[in-house]
Amino acid sequence: MPHDHDGPLARLRRGHEELVLRLLRTHGPLSRGELGRLSGLSRTTLYDIVTVLVDAGAIVATPPAAAERRRGRPVDALSLHPGAGQAIGIDFARRAVHVAAVNLAHEVIGSASAPHAADLGREERVALAERLVGELAGGRLRLGALSGIGVGVVGPVGERRAQRAGTGELVAQEGEFTARAEAAGSHADLAVLLRKRFGVPVLLDNNTRLAALAEATWGAAAGVQDVLYVRLSHGVGGGLVVGGALHRGAHGLSGELGHITADPDGGPCSCGKRGCLETVASIGAVLDAHPTAADLPSFLAALPDDPDARRVLDAAGTRVGTVLAAVCNALGPEVTVLGGELAAAGPALLGPVERALSAHLMPVSRPLLDLRAAVLGEVAGALGAIALVLHESPLLTRYPAPESVE
Amino acid sequence: MPHDHDGPLARLRRGHEELVLRLLRTHGPLSRGELGRLSGLSRTTLYDIVTVLVDAGAIVATPPAAAERRRGRPVDALSLHPGAGQAIGIDFARRAVHVAAVNLAHEVIGSASAPHAADLGREERVALAERLVGELAGGRLRLGALSGIGVGVVGPVGERRAQRAGTGELVAQEGEFTARAEAAGSHADLAVLLRKRFGVPVLLDNNTRLAALAEATWGAAAGVQDVLYVRLSHGVGGGLVVGGALHRGAHGLSGELGHITADPDGGPCSCGKRGCLETVASIGAVLDAHPTAADLPSFLAALPDDPDARRVLDAAGTRVGTVLAAVCNALGPEVTVLGGELAAAGPALLGPVERALSAHLMPVSRPLLDLRAAVLGEVAGALGAIALVLHESPLLTRYPAPESVE
Repeated sequence: MPHDHDGPLARLRRGHEELVLRLLRTHGPLSRGELGRLSGLSRTTLYDIVTVLVDAGAIVATPPAAAERRRGRPVDALSLHPGAGQAIGIDFARRAVHVAAVNLAHEVIGSASAPHAADLGREERVALAERLVGELAGGRLRLGALSGIGVGVVGPVGERRAQRAGTGELVAQEGEFTARAEAAGSHADLAVLLRKRFGVPVLLDNNTRLAALAEATWGAAAGVQDVLYVRLSHGVGGGLVVGGALHRGAHGLSGELGHITADPDGGPCSCGKRGCLETVASIGAVLDAHPTAADLPSFLAALPDDPDARRVLDAAGTRVGTVLAAVCNALGPEVTVLGGELAAAGPALLGPVERALSAHLMPVSRPLLDLRAAVLGEVAGALGAIALVLHESPLLTRYPAPESVE
Repeated sequence: MPHDHDGPLARLRRGHEELVLRLLRTHGPLSRGELGRLSGLSRTTLYDIVTVLVDAGAIVATPPAAAERRRGRPVDALSLHPGAGQAIGIDFARRAVHVAAVNLAHEVIGSASAPHAADLGREERVALAERLVGELAGGRLRLGALSGIGVGVVGPVGERRAQRAGTGELVAQEGEFTARAEAAGSHADLAVLLRKRFGVPVLLDNNTRLAALAEATWGAAAGVQDVLYVRLSHGVGGGLVVGGALHRGAHGLSGELGHITADPDGGPCSCGKRGCLETVASIGAVLDAHPTAADLPSFLAALPDDPDARRVLDAAGTRVGTVLAAVCNALGPEVTVLGGELAAAGPALLGPVERALSAHLMPVSRPLLDLRAAVLGEVAGALGAIALVLHESPLLTRYPAPESVE
């Protein structure tokens, strides 16, 4: 039978494996008998799953200590591999590479960034990422035991991903439309390159969406299941976390908050339409609206004594809040997170965003409004890439479904 | 241990049960041995699950025919109960009760409606529903084998639902805020009343959201995983289906498309704010904007020869499309469905909706736009209530989690 990587039986299999890993994480080392009792799985099923997980380096079987052995039949203890389950995230941003890593307990063990010229080639960016990962891990990461590498990229990434036969590798699917196909093709090449360098599966998504997932995993909305995230940077983007998982939309084009019409009479946007939120709330738009500001640092530094800067932020924040309210009325997120470099303006921006958001929310929803500033900064994309691996690693799905195992 | 109805182990248990039911649906009658082999479950786990499913009337164990028995050890065949798995949906709309029923194959076997005065009491509405269900079923429904009854109601219904100890019954949780608490309390009473009358679990949700789920299950977007639905009726509401499931939002306040600001300078809305989509695109708003129209039937009848009517619909449709575009840019649904009585205007309304939606979508998303007219009409809420039961029936979750079964 053809490998069914997303059918009910593959999901069942994945569910069984996740259960075994979760039981080992919760209970510590267990014998096969104990695992069978706790999981409710048959000996045959459990044997298959343990074999695969041991082969994948996810768990280890430890012979009993001498003292234990004397007491009766020797029984191996199964436990999570001390070096397993670690994941790396890499964010290939426009002018920098960011990397981060987590340990088995899903604690962030470090992050690093390096700026580069906007026209740096792909090979060089990957080499830069490789160097940062090496420095970061300091020899502590067993790359072969990694669940995978998560990768953030600029631009749209399709929902459906093609699985390259035999590699267990997920790459962006080439879309139906030229612009998307080009981006997706480029992303696929990048995934292949990383797969070769690191020897583990590569998962890839848009870095703004990944920042949303990061804030919902480790950041301002840690542990919250339904999060709306907007990022005010050189562009304006966003991401949705729905039921704890990244929401991609049917065609991978969700989270485009920057291209919601904010001013019907507004100017042209890079996307081709007019009056998008990005044309009034990006860093460039805010600086352009100010009579003298040259760059964001000087704009932010002058903020306390600059009524013009506060007026400009008030106008931009009002537009942002109005757009967010439309999305909140439709979606009903638990927490809304405001990120990106512009969010560093603090209350001068968050205040007007919150006022406009509240004003345009259904009154019954207003007391539930929970707007927070992002906390993860520029490394959010890399952290979100890790979260993607932890949520969706193909490690546990790249073998036949149970009905074809006999 | 306290019953854990939504923890990982309860989900695992539910997954096992769904697997058993799915295998019986796919393969037809199976022995316990065959079920064990196909499911990968241990004998003990399978025994527990089969016992519970037999007790619940979901499956039956049939002794072998005499011919079979002679060939060796007699083995019961397990199969789905012929009368099981049927579900009923009831929509308590403002001025009518609608009911519908499906058979085991999830085919709709009938629907019925009865109008009533807006001030009819709850007991009388339930009696009306009971009469319609009786007529509809015509003795073919085994109520005791129902998975449950789904119920649509007017007004907000909270996300989290309380489970009444020992009844397996899901009811709306009382919210934190007075208006919602009153609505939720009233909904809870209704669920209790229905539970008493029909003797099966009752699941309840907002009827506009349920209409969205119905269109995504049997209607204009049948089988589509990500659907945005808007209903233009006496009010304007909506619903989201995300990943094939009803999206409720963190506080059960999702889908409020009618209260997205459509005209910042607009008039007051019943919700307390101004310029909501409902103030420009409800049936009442459209009739008010027309110089002479008295009611919707005459408005629609005159449409072909009435430029005023087309102008009015063009203005309303443009507002609807603009609001939908904001939500689509954020959410990226695969299909957008336009329903409610006003949608009967056809292209005179859908045309301007589609034009405005396309104009305000990101250009890269425009070729993917898929706007459809709803097809299920007034029974959509009742059908969605059935879909809710099929998706989320508590039948399979109302016993202890496996760790507490020994």
